[in-house]
Amino acid sequence: MGRLLIIGCGGVAGVAIHKCCQNSKTFSEICIASRTKAKCDALKEKLENTTETKITTAQVDADKVEELIALIQSYQPDAVLNVALPYQDLTIMDACLACKVDYIDTANYEPEDTDDKQWREIYEKRCKEAGFTAYFDYSWQWAYQEKFKEAGITALLGSGFDPGVTSVFTAYALKHYFDEIETIDILDCNGGDHGYPFATNFNPEINLREVSANGSYWENGHWVETEPMEIKREYNFPQVGEKDMYLLHHEEIESLAKNVPGVKRIRFFMTFGQSYLTHMKCLENVGMLSTSPILFEGKEIVPIQFLKALLPDPASLGPRTVGKTNIGCIFTGKKDGKEKTIYIYNVCNHQECYKEVGSQAISYTTGVPAMIGAALVVDKVWDKDGVFNIEEFDPDPFMDMLNQYGLPWVVDENPQTVE
Amino acid sequence: MGRLLIIGCGGVAGVAIHKCCQNSKTFSEICIASRTKAKCDALKEKLENTTETKITTAQVDADKVEELIALIQSYQPDAVLNVALPYQDLTIMDACLACKVDYIDTANYEPEDTDDKQWREIYEKRCKEAGFTAYFDYSWQWAYQEKFKEAGITALLGSGFDPGVTSVFTAYALKHYFDEIETIDILDCNGGDHGYPFATNFNPEINLREVSANGSYWENGHWVETEPMEIKREYNFPQVGEKDMYLLHHEEIESLAKNVPGVKRIRFFMTFGQSYLTHMKCLENVGMLSTSPILFEGKEIVPIQFLKALLPDPASLGPRTVGKTNIGCIFTGKKDGKEKTIYIYNVCNHQECYKEVGSQAISYTTGVPAMIGAALVVDKVWDKDGVFNIEEFDPDPFMDMLNQYGLPWVVDENPQTVE
Repeated sequence: MGRLLIIGCGGVAGVAIHKCCQNSKTFSEICIASRTKAKCDALKEKLENTTETKITTAQVDADKVEELIALIQSYQPDAVLNVALPYQDLTIMDACLACKVDYIDTANYEPEDTDDKQWREIYEKRCKEAGFTAYFDYSWQWAYQEKFKEAGITALLGSGFDPGVTSVFTAYALKHYFDEIETIDILDCNGGDHGYPFATNFNPEINLREVSANGSYWENGHWVETEPMEIKREYNFPQVGEKDMYLLHHEEIESLAKNVPGVKRIRFFMTFGQSYLTHMKCLENVGMLSTSPILFEGKEIVPIQFLKALLPDPASLGPRTVGKTNIGCIFTGKKDGKEKTIYIYNVCNHQECYKEVGSQAISYTTGVPAMIGAALVVDKVWDKDGVFNIEEFDPDPFMDMLNQYGLPWVVDENPQTVE
Repeated sequence: MGRLLIIGCGGVAGVAIHKCCQNSKTFSEICIASRTKAKCDALKEKLENTTETKITTAQVDADKVEELIALIQSYQPDAVLNVALPYQDLTIMDACLACKVDYIDTANYEPEDTDDKQWREIYEKRCKEAGFTAYFDYSWQWAYQEKFKEAGITALLGSGFDPGVTSVFTAYALKHYFDEIETIDILDCNGGDHGYPFATNFNPEINLREVSANGSYWENGHWVETEPMEIKREYNFPQVGEKDMYLLHHEEIESLAKNVPGVKRIRFFMTFGQSYLTHMKCLENVGMLSTSPILFEGKEIVPIQFLKALLPDPASLGPRTVGKTNIGCIFTGKKDGKEKTIYIYNVCNHQECYKEVGSQAISYTTGVPAMIGAALVVDKVWDKDGVFNIEEFDPDPFMDMLNQYGLPWVVDENPQTVE
């Protein structure tokens, strides 16, 4: 019996809200709030006759702390689930602090409306202010640790899939399979096919940043940086097949490096098809991925924005995407003095997700864990004062709920490893 | 001792004008005329102290027959060399007819400002009107045959490289090496490298039409149509090396099929690099090659026009292009009852062209033959009343002038053939 305020009404939010409505025992009431109330109302109308959860809606500008505070004070939720944009993590955390309400999100904060150079500058300044010496994704949010502790409330960071489920897999492996984990390879494979020669699942600027940013991994107590897409491996993913994957920087490496004692190496790999990479490269070569405006027929036009207008609307990909995702972690380490390797993963089918909640697997695999994290906080199964990454809680109830709510997982004790 | 009116002041015209100035014996006077007189004046200033040819300039809108007639009447040239746009062939021919002055061009007429569909419709209508039953590049211009004959003047069509030199090679082979030519393979190889990942030598719309149009070749008395880029061959080009080449439709096939008695097959191949084709394909896939406007931020934008604005200016490629072109024809047939194969080709060096005339080999190989054709008409070496393609004249003086003016040729009597 609890009351959840959900901020955001996009693809991931839609899945999380569907899943809350399947869990009315915990979520007897939810309020869906976003900038555009009509979107919230449409979702309410679609769901309210299918569930015992009582749904209300509200309009809120999540950039404005005072609006958030007013909404929280009026709705009086047990927790706030932030499935808005990562730009709004801090304003929502500020409002939760002011109202002493628990907070859950799925992605680490980043500043809005900045090009890569500005973004890096702000980042570095902020890291310096927070007393960090290196590059940290979580620096802004970890800086709230003392405040949340003093307020006696919980902030659960990164309750999506990666970060999120992959970190829970890690806590679970450490609890049940290992005395000591030595290496973690996080493998994110999207084997889906939308049938277009080229399209992006979300904003092409974010896709671009992924393939053009330096990679990095954690080894022997420090970060090792790589050239963009420098490290490539092939892996034969269960239920998906052989795919090329590339080492990227990813935010959960940072928290796992802190929270897994003695870990020697943590890497993150994501699959990219050759055709996708070729299109990105060609578009980059002709200047279509540039974020700097050019003057064209008397008007300033940003090439990547024009490209976005040409590409299929990401929302249109859902109904036509077939195939599966496979996301998981390969752990090596020791148990009772013996070397051991296990692979924990989930396989998710795009079409089945679409049939169930109207979104394909990319949103589904993030939205389901968002609901689970919120449920464990609301039910006080997870209850610690301060700011925590998800691997800092007991993984068992979360693992059970994954099986129950559509993301069943497999433990393979004899997996293919990554060189 | 002659007087030539040159219409056009672009890349090819620049080369032709340089070359006229190297041949003051024939061209004692030239007048350079184009829409923008300042361009003509700049070229005049650059050249007039290097030559005995007397250079004047004029402003003319080559779309307007009456302006052309006034200019011809005032300048009184012996011939008009049309190195403007192919859209203007007919207005210039009309003016030459009105003034009874010989006419030379380098490319067959096509209507301006039409998309591919409109262009094909106009084309088909015109073919029907002219009494042709099939697809003819030269239908518009061949329709002037009787008028030019009656007027007692010469129209020399297609005095560039291909069409142009390749057709002269054919006439030369027929005159000196064969009793009967059975097959002709025209091979156009640009082995140049401008150092950009992707750039186009001229308007990307024309590049697009090349790679996306159906191919066709002449065989046993009729056209055989292929899918775009369907027929691919490899060829080891002398002084350039191994290249992929693709069968395209090309205008000289049409006139050679008419003018080479008994020819069984004529094909045209052009080299394209894999990287070039990959970029074209990716750009096409995302819609960047579309000629239909899309609404973007309240303004109609034609994607291929925006792409053009992003790509390097074709004029900037000249100084940085290295490597060579190799263009020529492989002939098979019979001489004195015996089977025979020869390959006549020219190799042209981009950097040497640039040093000599400030243009790379693409413009050079078209501009030099334009001057030679004009010289042979002005000198009355070539003098027949009516409209003629270049292979209908005696090739020997033209072949001599190719050697003399920078496009030396080779006859290989034991060449690699094309399957």
